[in-house]
Amino acid sequence: MAHLGKVFLIGAGPGAQDLITLRGARLLAQAEVVLHDALVAPEMLELCPQAQLVDVGKRCGKLSARQDWINSQLIDYARQFACVVRLKGGDPMLFGRADEELRALEEAGIEVDIVPGITTALAAAAACKQPLTRRGIARSVALFTSSTAPEHADPMPVTPDADTIVQYMGGREAIATARRLLGQGRAPGTPVVAVESCSRPEQKITRLSLAELAEGLEVAHGPVLVMIGEALRARS
Amino acid sequence: MAHLGKVFLIGAGPGAQDLITLRGARLLAQAEVVLHDALVAPEMLELCPQAQLVDVGKRCGKLSARQDWINSQLIDYARQFACVVRLKGGDPMLFGRADEELRALEEAGIEVDIVPGITTALAAAAACKQPLTRRGIARSVALFTSSTAPEHADPMPVTPDADTIVQYMGGREAIATARRLLGQGRAPGTPVVAVESCSRPEQKITRLSLAELAEGLEVAHGPVLVMIGEALRARS
Repeated sequence: MAHLGKVFLIGAGPGAQDLITLRGARLLAQAEVVLHDALVAPEMLELCPQAQLVDVGKRCGKLSARQDWINSQLIDYARQFACVVRLKGGDPMLFGRADEELRALEEAGIEVDIVPGITTALAAAAACKQPLTRRGIARSVALFTSSTAPEHADPMPVTPDADTIVQYMGGREAIATARRLLGQGRAPGTPVVAVESCSRPEQKITRLSLAELAEGLEVAHGPVLVMIGEALRARS
Repeated sequence: MAHLGKVFLIGAGPGAQDLITLRGARLLAQAEVVLHDALVAPEMLELCPQAQLVDVGKRCGKLSARQDWINSQLIDYARQFACVVRLKGGDPMLFGRADEELRALEEAGIEVDIVPGITTALAAAAACKQPLTRRGIARSVALFTSSTAPEHADPMPVTPDADTIVQYMGGREAIATARRLLGQGRAPGTPVVAVESCSRPEQKITRLSLAELAEGLEVAHGPVLVMIGEALRARS
């Protein structure tokens, strides 16, 4: 094959169309093909009206088989087109399984560039106007997720240790996190902020305490970001 | 006072002009005044040729006095202009002392909105093409910084615990971090990637092992981001 296209792994950000980077928007406008997740908001795809859209959403099917299929789709399109975009919700390098796509593309000899995106934790902090770090209060932030796929269920979930704890795809899993943190001595009154549909018109922000979360107060049914720590205490 | 302006706290991202969000760029183009850090790259200010620029860089002087002065400048400008931008390197809610500015503005009755920015850790992961999380390898990421200001020197620095550890403003402090991580049982061969001047033309990426970092191999003299963890092992 004389020519191989280039693949751009682009972070779409949390959902709002204007929270993608200038670089990401420019590449979307140039793309011939855009392979996107179910997590990417429909408005983002208005940025690439010229492109062929391929929905590689992961909502159903076995994750690993689905990932192999996405990898082969990326390679196939890169062999046909000069500019292929792989658009991912949030940032591609955080909870995005980018490693598997990078490995497959590199093994196929295809050049890849990565454009970072706003990760939901930072958009959520902006939305609720609560910094994740605060002088004298919080100097470290841990971002984590529990595997939700049955095939990767974690028998021994571990909560990372930092002043501020942010759980992606929290939902019911965040209740267990709250119990573990209380067991480790975190104060029951530690503030918790849960943000659902961050940056979208239907965005919902819930404030509660660590003890309330531990008692099973479910913060949301769908994907929700749960932020825990003294830095999140409301100012007024 | 009949009218008060609005202040937008905007994350400029890691440095490259096109790694700001569309929203951030649009607001910069509308701003009457832009108060910016020394960390903000000069090219970012080309996005607001119409605005009055105020350099509130923190390079010298006592930090706390300087912060009080920035707060009062923000309030003064918001009393004179409708659209005031406070432009910060990276993301405003992470290591940005946003809390102090938000508090001062809210106490003065001034409305504030926040626009997130690409934090350097994610831009660095994109630059070196190493995801910070990897299935079966790394499910959590901790972001932290050591205080570099003498007035806030930390007598007992604590390294957060997560699969991937990212130290902002690493430099010499990262050597102590590496020693602590080895003491906690982290493998000497754990990969380390240091990224200096991330996303800028002079960007420099250094790969080494945790043991090499602990031995005092200084990765950079200036501000450098140091990423540590098995997820950062080079693919080839």
